[in-house]
Amino acid sequence: MNNFTYSIPTTVFFGKGSIEKLPKEILKYADNILIVYGGGSIKKNGIYNEMTALLKENKISFCELSGVEPNPRIISVRRGVEIARENKINGILAIGGGSTIDCAKTISAAFDYEGDAWDLVKNPKLIKSCLPIFTVLTISATGSEMDAGAVISDMKTNDKLALFNKGMLPKASVLDPTYTYSVSALQTASGTADIISHILEVYFDDEDDAFMQNKICEALLKTCIKYGPKAIETPDDYEARANLMWASSWAINGFISCGKGKVAWPVHGMEHSLSAYYDIPHGVGLALLTPYFMELMLQKDVKVIKKFEELAQNVFGKNTAEEAIESLRNYFKKLGLPVKLKELNIDKTHFEIMAEKAVEYSSLKYSWIPMDKQDVLTIYNMAL
Amino acid sequence: MNNFTYSIPTTVFFGKGSIEKLPKEILKYADNILIVYGGGSIKKNGIYNEMTALLKENKISFCELSGVEPNPRIISVRRGVEIARENKINGILAIGGGSTIDCAKTISAAFDYEGDAWDLVKNPKLIKSCLPIFTVLTISATGSEMDAGAVISDMKTNDKLALFNKGMLPKASVLDPTYTYSVSALQTASGTADIISHILEVYFDDEDDAFMQNKICEALLKTCIKYGPKAIETPDDYEARANLMWASSWAINGFISCGKGKVAWPVHGMEHSLSAYYDIPHGVGLALLTPYFMELMLQKDVKVIKKFEELAQNVFGKNTAEEAIESLRNYFKKLGLPVKLKELNIDKTHFEIMAEKAVEYSSLKYSWIPMDKQDVLTIYNMAL
Repeated sequence: MNNFTYSIPTTVFFGKGSIEKLPKEILKYADNILIVYGGGSIKKNGIYNEMTALLKENKISFCELSGVEPNPRIISVRRGVEIARENKINGILAIGGGSTIDCAKTISAAFDYEGDAWDLVKNPKLIKSCLPIFTVLTISATGSEMDAGAVISDMKTNDKLALFNKGMLPKASVLDPTYTYSVSALQTASGTADIISHILEVYFDDEDDAFMQNKICEALLKTCIKYGPKAIETPDDYEARANLMWASSWAINGFISCGKGKVAWPVHGMEHSLSAYYDIPHGVGLALLTPYFMELMLQKDVKVIKKFEELAQNVFGKNTAEEAIESLRNYFKKLGLPVKLKELNIDKTHFEIMAEKAVEYSSLKYSWIPMDKQDVLTIYNMAL
Repeated sequence: MNNFTYSIPTTVFFGKGSIEKLPKEILKYADNILIVYGGGSIKKNGIYNEMTALLKENKISFCELSGVEPNPRIISVRRGVEIARENKINGILAIGGGSTIDCAKTISAAFDYEGDAWDLVKNPKLIKSCLPIFTVLTISATGSEMDAGAVISDMKTNDKLALFNKGMLPKASVLDPTYTYSVSALQTASGTADIISHILEVYFDDEDDAFMQNKICEALLKTCIKYGPKAIETPDDYEARANLMWASSWAINGFISCGKGKVAWPVHGMEHSLSAYYDIPHGVGLALLTPYFMELMLQKDVKVIKKFEELAQNVFGKNTAEEAIESLRNYFKKLGLPVKLKELNIDKTHFEIMAEKAVEYSSLKYSWIPMDKQDVLTIYNMAL
C-alpha cells in the first residue's frame, strides 16, 4: 500500500428534507452568495423555490447564474465570475449535477484571479484562493459534490480539461435522493455508468496489497449494479436513488484511490476527447468505451487477466476475464446505453485529432498498461 | 436508508515515515502541547525520540503524561488535566493505542471544565470546549484515531463508560503501519477482534435498504479476516499491518453506520461490564462474547437468520446462520483467543452486578433484538 494523505472535510447532509440543514452551514462562511444552476429543471421540480425560501428566511442574500450547460463551458464560468464580482459575493451555491457544480467550482477559483478563467483550467497551479462552495445535488454521477475537481470545456477549441484544487472541495453538500426522482432514464443510466467508470479506473491495477481498497471498490460496484436498473424502472424508488447517490460520492472522493498509487484515468482521457467533439453525456461515452478498452488491455498484456477475473468473480458472479467484459457490456446494454459509436452518429472524421488530444491532455502513457495514440485509435475503431 | 449527517474532517497521514508531516499540521492549531502515552514502549521502539525531535525542530514545546493504562482510568485523566493546566498547553498529542488516545481526548474536554472530569464522562453534554487533539497510532483496534468517542473507567466503582463529543475528533492522525510491528500476537488478535466487533455491531440489523453500507461492512470484514492471522504470523508484514490499520479507522469512524439508524452496540455493552470487573483486553472480551451473543439471537428471533446467512455467504464463503457463528468462533480461535471465560479465570461471582451495569449503561434494550438483564446473564453463563 502506498503512502497517502486522507482529508475529505466536506459535510454531507443526506436524506429527504435535509436541505433545511444547509443555511446554517452556509452562514458559517458566507451571507451573500451566487446560486449556480442549469437549464431550469430546479424551477419545475420545486428545489429552486425551496432553497431560495430557506435563504431568505436565514437572511442570506443571493444573485444567480442560470443556464449552465452539460459539459460546462468556459463562457459560463466567465459570465459567473462577472456576476459574482458585481455582487461582491462571499460564497457559491451550486444546485444541480456535476456540470453545474464544476462550473461553480471554477468560478470560485477565478473570482480573485486577475487574468482569464481559462488560464486556471489549463494551469490549476495559478489558483491562489477559492470562495467557499456549497452544493445541492440533483444527479448521481460525477461525485463533484465531495471532491476537489472540475471539468471545463472550450467548445471553440474542442478542449475539455480537468482541474483540481483543494479549495474547490465543497464545504457542505446536500444529498437528497428524492431530488433525483425526475432524472430521466438516459441520464440515470449515464450517471450510473459514470460512477462505475470512476471505480474501475481506480480498481484496474496490480496493487494487490491495497486489498481493503479493492474490496471497497467491489462493494461500490455491486451497489451500482444492483440499483442502476431499479432506478430506471422505478424512478421514485428511494432505496435505489439513495444507494446510487451515496455511491456516486464515494466512487471519486479520493477514498478508494488512497494507497493505490497514481491513477491515470485512461478511459476518462479517451472519453473527454469524445464528448469535446460530440456533445454526448460523459457517462454514455464511458460506458461505450470501457468494454473495448478492457478488450485491448487483454490483448496487450496478460497481467490484466487476474484483475479482470477478480471483477468477474467478486462482482458479477462469473469466472473469466472475458466474462467480466461481457457482463459489463451486457449490464450497460440493460441500462439502455449504446454500445457502438454509430448509434450516436459518430464516425471516423475526428479520430486522429481526438486521439492526439486524449494523449496530450491525460496520463494515458502512465496508465497501468501504458497507452499511446495508436492504442486510442484502435479503441475508437473497435467502438465504431 | 435513514437520514444522516456525514462529517469526518480528521486528516490522516498514512504510511511509513508519515510522522514527518505531523508538526506542520499541529502548528496550524497549537505550539505548546501535552504528549500523552502509555507504559513506555514508545521509548523502546524509537517513536518517542522520533516525535520529540520533530517537535523540537519545529519549535513546538511540550510536557508529558506517561503511564496511561489499558482501559484508561479517570485518575490518569485527572493527572493529565493538572499537568496540562500547569503548563498552559494549547493542544494534545496522544502516542499510542485507543486507551492513550481516549485518555487524551477526555483531558482535552476537561481542560476548561471547572468540575471533576468524571462529571463529563457521566454526562458528556457538560462538555463545552475541547483542545485540539493529534494522534500517532501504535495499535490497530479501537478506531479512536478517527472518531469522536472515548471510553474511561473508574476502577473504584467498576464503571466503564463511553463519551462522545465532536470536539474530541482528532485534527490529524499519523497511521504508520511499521509502528505496529512490535504489537504482540495477543494484542494483534485482540485488536483485530475489536475491529471485527465494531463492524458486526453495525452490520447486524434488518436495514437491507442500506445496501452500500452493508457491502462496505463485508469489505472491511474480509480485510480483517485475511490479514489478522498474517500479522500474527509475520509481525513485520507491512501489507497486513497496513490493511488492518486502515480498516480499524473505517470500522468505527461513523461511515458504515451512516444511514443504518440507531446502533445499540449490545456486545460492547456486555463487554464493558466484563473488562470493568476483570482487567482483560477489550477485544478478548468481544471475541469471546460475540459468538454466544449470536447464538442467543438465533434462539430469540428467526429474523436474524437472513443476516447471519449473508455473513456466512458473503464473508466466510459458507451458507447457513449456524456456519456464520461457527466460522467466526473458529476464526477467533485461530487468532489464539480464548472462547470460554474460565480460560480467563472468570467465574460467576460478579455476573449479577455486571449484567445490571450492562443494561444500565448501554442501549441493550434498544438493540436490533432487544435484550434485558436475563439475556445478558444467559450469554455470560453460555460463555462460562
